[in-house]
Amino acid sequence: MSKVRYPSFRTVLEKGGPVRVAGAHNALGGVLAQQAGFEAVWSSSLEVSAARCLPDASILTMTEYLESAVHMQRALAIPVVADCDTGYGGTMNVAHMVREFEDNGITAVCMEDKLFPKMNSFVGEGQSLLDTPAFAAKVSTAKAVQSTEDFFVIARTEALISGLGVDEALTRCHAYCDAGADAVLIHSKAPTNAQVLEFLEAWDGRRPVVVVPTTYPDWHVDEATRAGVSVIIYANQGLRAIVSSLRKTFEAIYQTGDSTQVEDLIVPVGEIFELQHLKEWQKLDA
Amino acid sequence: MSKVRYPSFRTVLEKGGPVRVAGAHNALGGVLAQQAGFEAVWSSSLEVSAARCLPDASILTMTEYLESAVHMQRALAIPVVADCDTGYGGTMNVAHMVREFEDNGITAVCMEDKLFPKMNSFVGEGQSLLDTPAFAAKVSTAKAVQSTEDFFVIARTEALISGLGVDEALTRCHAYCDAGADAVLIHSKAPTNAQVLEFLEAWDGRRPVVVVPTTYPDWHVDEATRAGVSVIIYANQGLRAIVSSLRKTFEAIYQTGDSTQVEDLIVPVGEIFELQHLKEWQKLDA
Amino acid sequence: MSKVRYPSFRTVLEKGGPVRVAGAHNALGGVLAQQAGFEAVWSSSLEVSAARCLPDASILTMTEYLESAVHMQRALAIPVVADCDTGYGGTMNVAHMVREFEDNGITAVCMEDKLFPKMNSFVGEGQSLLDTPAFAAKVSTAKAVQSTEDFFVIARTEALISGLGVDEALTRCHAYCDAGADAVLIHSKAPTNAQVLEFLEAWDGRRPVVVVPTTYPDWHVDEATRAGVSVIIYANQGLRAIVSSLRKTFEAIYQTGDSTQVEDLIVPVGEIFELQHLKEWQKLDA
Amino acid sequence: MSKVRYPSFRTVLEKGGPVRVAGAHNALGGVLAQQAGFEAVWSSSLEVSAARCLPDASILTMTEYLESAVHMQRALAIPVVADCDTGYGGTMNVAHMVREFEDNGITAVCMEDKLFPKMNSFVGEGQSLLDTPAFAAKVSTAKAVQSTEDFFVIARTEALISGLGVDEALTRCHAYCDAGADAVLIHSKAPTNAQVLEFLEAWDGRRPVVVVPTTYPDWHVDEATRAGVSVIIYANQGLRAIVSSLRKTFEAIYQTGDSTQVEDLIVPVGEIFELQHLKEWQKLDA
Repeated sequence: MSKVRYPSFRTVLEKGGPVRVAGAHNALGGVLAQQAGFEAVWSSSLEVSAARCLPDASILTMTEYLESAVHMQRALAIPVVADCDTGYGGTMNVAHMVREFEDNGITAVCMEDKLFPKMNSFVGEGQSLLDTPAFAAKVSTAKAVQSTEDFFVIARTEALISGLGVDEALTRCHAYCDAGADAVLIHSKAPTNAQVLEFLEAWDGRRPVVVVPTTYPDWHVDEATRAGVSVIIYANQGLRAIVSSLRKTFEAIYQTGDSTQVEDLIVPVGEIFELQHLKEWQKLDA
Repeated sequence: MSKVRYPSFRTVLEKGGPVRVAGAHNALGGVLAQQAGFEAVWSSSLEVSAARCLPDASILTMTEYLESAVHMQRALAIPVVADCDTGYGGTMNVAHMVREFEDNGITAVCMEDKLFPKMNSFVGEGQSLLDTPAFAAKVSTAKAVQSTEDFFVIARTEALISGLGVDEALTRCHAYCDAGADAVLIHSKAPTNAQVLEFLEAWDGRRPVVVVPTTYPDWHVDEATRAGVSVIIYANQGLRAIVSSLRKTFEAIYQTGDSTQVEDLIVPVGEIFELQHLKEWQKLDA
Repeated sequence: MSKVRYPSFRTVLEKGGPVRVAGAHNALGGVLAQQAGFEAVWSSSLEVSAARCLPDASILTMTEYLESAVHMQRALAIPVVADCDTGYGGTMNVAHMVREFEDNGITAVCMEDKLFPKMNSFVGEGQSLLDTPAFAAKVSTAKAVQSTEDFFVIARTEALISGLGVDEALTRCHAYCDAGADAVLIHSKAPTNAQVLEFLEAWDGRRPVVVVPTTYPDWHVDEATRAGVSVIIYANQGLRAIVSSLRKTFEAIYQTGDSTQVEDLIVPVGEIFELQHLKEWQKLDA
Repeated sequence: MSKVRYPSFRTVLEKGGPVRVAGAHNALGGVLAQQAGFEAVWSSSLEVSAARCLPDASILTMTEYLESAVHMQRALAIPVVADCDTGYGGTMNVAHMVREFEDNGITAVCMEDKLFPKMNSFVGEGQSLLDTPAFAAKVSTAKAVQSTEDFFVIARTEALISGLGVDEALTRCHAYCDAGADAVLIHSKAPTNAQVLEFLEAWDGRRPVVVVPTTYPDWHVDEATRAGVSVIIYANQGLRAIVSSLRKTFEAIYQTGDSTQVEDLIVPVGEIFELQHLKEWQKLDA
């Protein structure tokens, strides 16, 4: 409970080496990711909306996504990268978003070039994108209103998700870098990383590249790094593990009629207290 | 996403049969409990505070506990029983609490007779209790300000937790029933349910009894029912399963360098979409 | 502090007689409007955003507007009509909006046919509107997802604001009624009520008409009623009075060097206590 | 809308000269105080609770008071001094409070030595105080957990409010300074400033003194400064002006049947737009 301090995402990235980021939806998930070694935490809009049992479709508001990101960051010694969807509307919304996240201590945000309201990238095909200059304007607005040098803006293109191909993805990412993006995120939900590799081969390295290997889980961090990736986001595996685990736990208790059987699968209460930093807090009352 | 409607906790209880309640800290956990068969969900203050990595010690505010309970209830077809700690202060705070929870659609709350700020019951020994008349006044205030007949107030005694013995627990529970409590919760963290059984034998049955078998997980629902228990709360097994599962998942990804190994342990993304009721939502745009 | 109960906006409207609604941004303003005789309170997005010193341009989120509306409603014995801008996005956002406002006890909402993100109607000229079928779809979605019969949806056209003329306003309002709107709001910022009168003459009375006479303040309630108006919203006079009054008060204190001079212009502290229902609350501790 | 930056309260105080602070409950009030010349804004718990029509009696939570203070600070170029009542509970609550307020950009907080839950100082007589060492422990905890040197903790004694006399007030204030308080606030609701003057004469000047001349409004800033006061809080005149002004405005509209009569008493809509920084925001879309 001693004041947790954290470096900015930019600082972490500049240390070199691949930066691995784990998706989470609350402080507890973020802290467990940090304990496992991850260098940053992704405040995933899929996870945050799923925790509410609502679609990842701009249904929850910036207020709610911001709150989740801030709750994570306050508990962490590593930076949060906030998944900010489309920037929550138009240019003014992006300006407000950057101010709110930055003022609340978030050091990196990611915006994508889909239309508002957005739909999760794994749903359907051929989602419409904002035209390139309009999204570039969002990026330049974000950069213009940030108040510290450190603040980091990732521009994410959904060109591959929308079936527009690698050339379109490259064109967009160049435009976003021209507009001031600090990194680009190239997202693909193809069953392999082939298109992403094609993108990486053609990329001139002017800005770091971020990937999200949800559908090509076998892409090893070392291979990705050699291919030119700087940041890898494991965006939702934690959430999917939780669903699996809660299902089993609740079913076992309900069906067997007591909780004996699950005792070996769950951590003791004392481990919860440790995650709550209870001993440090209790010293305040000594 | 079709409007979820739910019966009040009182209605569920009056159906007869043991009512089993699973602890959760967000809507997702509540829905998975519901799917497993549980009849109600406990918005556990231990879980909600642990999700923030803060102690279960009246650090989070009523606003935050209320928000968690409401987020759960909105996603559920079964009632939430809100763990309201001490009622968040004095008599006026209890009145405000009842109004806020009831106005937000919560149909049952539970208050305990510890002092504010409270400390989690599994921490230390001999925690101080509010004197009996003062807590009874809280109970009668809660009952006086509720605006629907259905609203249900559970009075929880920590007499056994505080080492005061079964007689004190009985005296207190009688006083709380005299003050209008709709049920009593007898909490014990002894390694067996012996003291709770002693309480149940002496209890005259004027109001239903609620138990929380965290430290005696082998107490079968049928045995408990025969012993006179009406409601069993499995208060934190879900949280403890999550910690166990997230640890393994994050460590496996970080240590192996990719997420292949965890693919078999986590649900597919499509299952997340189902929990988000995505198809029903999409029909709105058709 | 005794439980404040309120009729739905539909109930108030069905009583007959003109319904006058005062704009507010917090519970205090709402209560003072109620004390003055108003039949309902308008949770004005201009007021709520101005209270934050942010533009009325979809910068604040649904979460924040909802919270303001709910804080008002909880303190009132008359209904709140929630100014919901464009419905906060697309069709799914409208569905979520209706559920959230209705679940929180709001009985009437108003949506307008501008594009998201919107800009305040008094800013600039020729703001773009959503096409009629798309906005009608929002209206029908709103009506389809409401869970009580009482819930009331006002469809507001900005046709006159956008310079599209009375015919377009009529066409749109007819379409919105076909889609299920419970009332229509015809907004105009012309220096006189001429266009609104023209609209009223041509209106067939199938649904009640709501007006907002900000720029034609001399339109008497009796005249408006005779012209066919059912509801009059005095949307922002309260806010504008507050700015005027606070300016004078703060300047007087700062410039004179003490607060003697303002004593006659401000209510005594005891009047604040009455607005807080202090005596009723204190009875709880007796 | 250009990024508003503000000095810390400590910086403002160290500039010398009397620091005058105006009470407010939202950003708008804060900005109007700033425009009038005030050097800081008091996020008054009386004002914030009154805006909700709820008593100033620890009914609202830290979450709600924090949100109000932060909304003010984000809109201001002068610092907010947060009225933090008793620190919202015990020592741990104080630690959490300091972290939350400091992390959110608040640079000064004020805690008082009443018991939690507190009652507003103008209500009744002889309110009980926390014993001196216990409150001193709160002060030292606050100072121990702050993470920047700048953060400023004001210890407020209610000794005079509780009828305990000037000597007790002095003893307490010395103990609070020994515990690390950066300033002391001596509150009195007597009809004159006599007791406060007696306190000031006996005070050794080791730390700045803050006063709140609500009941002795004729105490001129220059006299107070000569008497040894460093900070004067005009805690609630703004709120009381608002009530007076809203009453008149709403009554005039309702009783006359239109809003003509109030037009001269309220600012034009354009002035609201200026307070919203509309033009600066619109440049983002240019």
